[in-house]
Amino acid sequence: MITEQTIREALKNVIVPAAERSLIDLNLVNNITILNDVVEITLANAAINTELQEYLTDGIRAALSKTNIANITVSYVETKPADLNHIKHIIAIMSGKGGVGKSAVSALLAISLQRTGNSVGILDADITGSSMPRMFGLKNRPLGSENGILPVASESGIDIISMNLMLPEQESAVIWRAPLLTKAIQQFWEEVLWGNLDYLIIDLPPGTADAPLTVMQSIPIEGVIIVSTPQSLVEMIVKKAVNMAQKMEKPILGIVENMSYFYVPELKKKYELFGKSKGETLAKAAHAPLLAQLPIDPELARLCDEGKIESYNSPFVKDLANAVTQIVAQKTESIT
Amino acid sequence: MITEQTIREALKNVIVPAAERSLIDLNLVNNITILNDVVEITLANAAINTELQEYLTDGIRAALSKTNIANITVSYVETKPADLNHIKHIIAIMSGKGGVGKSAVSALLAISLQRTGNSVGILDADITGSSMPRMFGLKNRPLGSENGILPVASESGIDIISMNLMLPEQESAVIWRAPLLTKAIQQFWEEVLWGNLDYLIIDLPPGTADAPLTVMQSIPIEGVIIVSTPQSLVEMIVKKAVNMAQKMEKPILGIVENMSYFYVPELKKKYELFGKSKGETLAKAAHAPLLAQLPIDPELARLCDEGKIESYNSPFVKDLANAVTQIVAQKTESIT
Repeated sequence: MITEQTIREALKNVIVPAAERSLIDLNLVNNITILNDVVEITLANAAINTELQEYLTDGIRAALSKTNIANITVSYVETKPADLNHIKHIIAIMSGKGGVGKSAVSALLAISLQRTGNSVGILDADITGSSMPRMFGLKNRPLGSENGILPVASESGIDIISMNLMLPEQESAVIWRAPLLTKAIQQFWEEVLWGNLDYLIIDLPPGTADAPLTVMQSIPIEGVIIVSTPQSLVEMIVKKAVNMAQKMEKPILGIVENMSYFYVPELKKKYELFGKSKGETLAKAAHAPLLAQLPIDPELARLCDEGKIESYNSPFVKDLANAVTQIVAQKTESIT
Repeated sequence: MITEQTIREALKNVIVPAAERSLIDLNLVNNITILNDVVEITLANAAINTELQEYLTDGIRAALSKTNIANITVSYVETKPADLNHIKHIIAIMSGKGGVGKSAVSALLAISLQRTGNSVGILDADITGSSMPRMFGLKNRPLGSENGILPVASESGIDIISMNLMLPEQESAVIWRAPLLTKAIQQFWEEVLWGNLDYLIIDLPPGTADAPLTVMQSIPIEGVIIVSTPQSLVEMIVKKAVNMAQKMEKPILGIVENMSYFYVPELKKKYELFGKSKGETLAKAAHAPLLAQLPIDPELARLCDEGKIESYNSPFVKDLANAVTQIVAQKTESIT
């Protein structure tokens, strides 16, 4: 006896290339009809071009070959990615100030959440200075159709979309005025097939202008995490981001202080290169918890440069995911 | 015998408040008519409101009180700052990537040029993340009239304009879309009374979008100086800025590598916190000289935080101005 459940289980083994997630994870299964030993499967065609449709149809036949189904029909129905995306938690990583390690924190949070069993995506909203593909060593270009774009999976399976995946060379300049940048961010949200995700991390560019404004106005983010460094000057500019989030009525989930110190093992001494920690002060001003204080780590810089950020191991990273999942859980509890 | 020359010499002692430069330096003297012992002085009214007009008229009378002039008339003629601004060298400091110390390099270059006898201004084009007033410890708000804005002088006499001088609090967020940001930058250029300057340093925000595009399209910059740090990831994004400058046909005057290393005096050891220097590689790619490699210096971070960047002394800073003046001189030679 063939049930919809058995078929769905089998379809979990049909993996969409580039995004490297199953038809089920990407929410592409629109309908399954079973009439005796004849099965009709309808898939959403969002982001799936005809070549990929053939590939997936073959994959479905292979996955179901061991069952007693006499006849399998696979058809595709016109769908937009937005209709298929079900994302539990959308968190924007913001700073106001550039170069505080916002992208590294975004990446490490995503990695950490992935390691603890969540399905995670990263939307790189820094269109002119996108660094995600480099940090993760992504080489593939995103696949897509008229109906949408597929993100590119990292080695550990984090789905990523970034302008740098689309450029002829990673050093090509994107000399665009803001309306185009804004449109690109909206496309990354509306036209990318994220499917079912536990977390979508949005890496924002510096500043409090178009990009964060667009994200806060048009993407249903659950809250923002603010990244800063110990310099007072940086704190001043980061507070602009705090003020913006408050004005836009987006909850600040927490503060991450990066580059807090450099530890010289030979001397067992911490050097506060950018001044005394202001993490607690900033957290108080933002009415949000201080989630982590990360040291300067040349090893992290090296791994980012080599595209191997996923190999980075540090107790700080684990703590970061724990802190974020706890906050999100508390928030959900207080709502329900 | 009263000559125009004597009067002009005397007017060098009449200082315009806030900008802290003389009527002559700001190019405000429109006309001087001498008829026997009667002198008529016409001043441009650009950025000079009526209160300031009275103050300056009194100042002129005081400055000329020791001469044998029987009668002094001071009148004001409608003028725009753009008609009075004569700036020899306009240099934009760019990076593409945030947080590489672009603003600190801009400030140190300005300080260094000022110390070697040049008149220098800074146009802070980072509207949402402006840090100049904080670094220089500026407290005054800019004065102005319907006809323009006066910059605010630093302790050593560098004239600075920055969005943070206009905000109710320095942590207020400027939540503006790009057309407004662009307009602010254009105003800082067209409506600010810079007068006669040897150098105007423009501190650009990160990215390759509206702000650098506006500066490159609407301000006659002589060239750009690119700031980077040793990380390959940063180098990749900085190369986008190099590509942009090349596409916009703006000469790259040189490269400054910042945060090259951290020197631990106890161990007499250099730590390359962000990886091996890529300054030379970047300079080659940009077909421009490597102007300086600056170490990470907690003392500089401290002085920036305390608003005392003008107290910073380092051989690196002196070298920076020398390198820039040499390049500018070579460029002028090769044209003439």
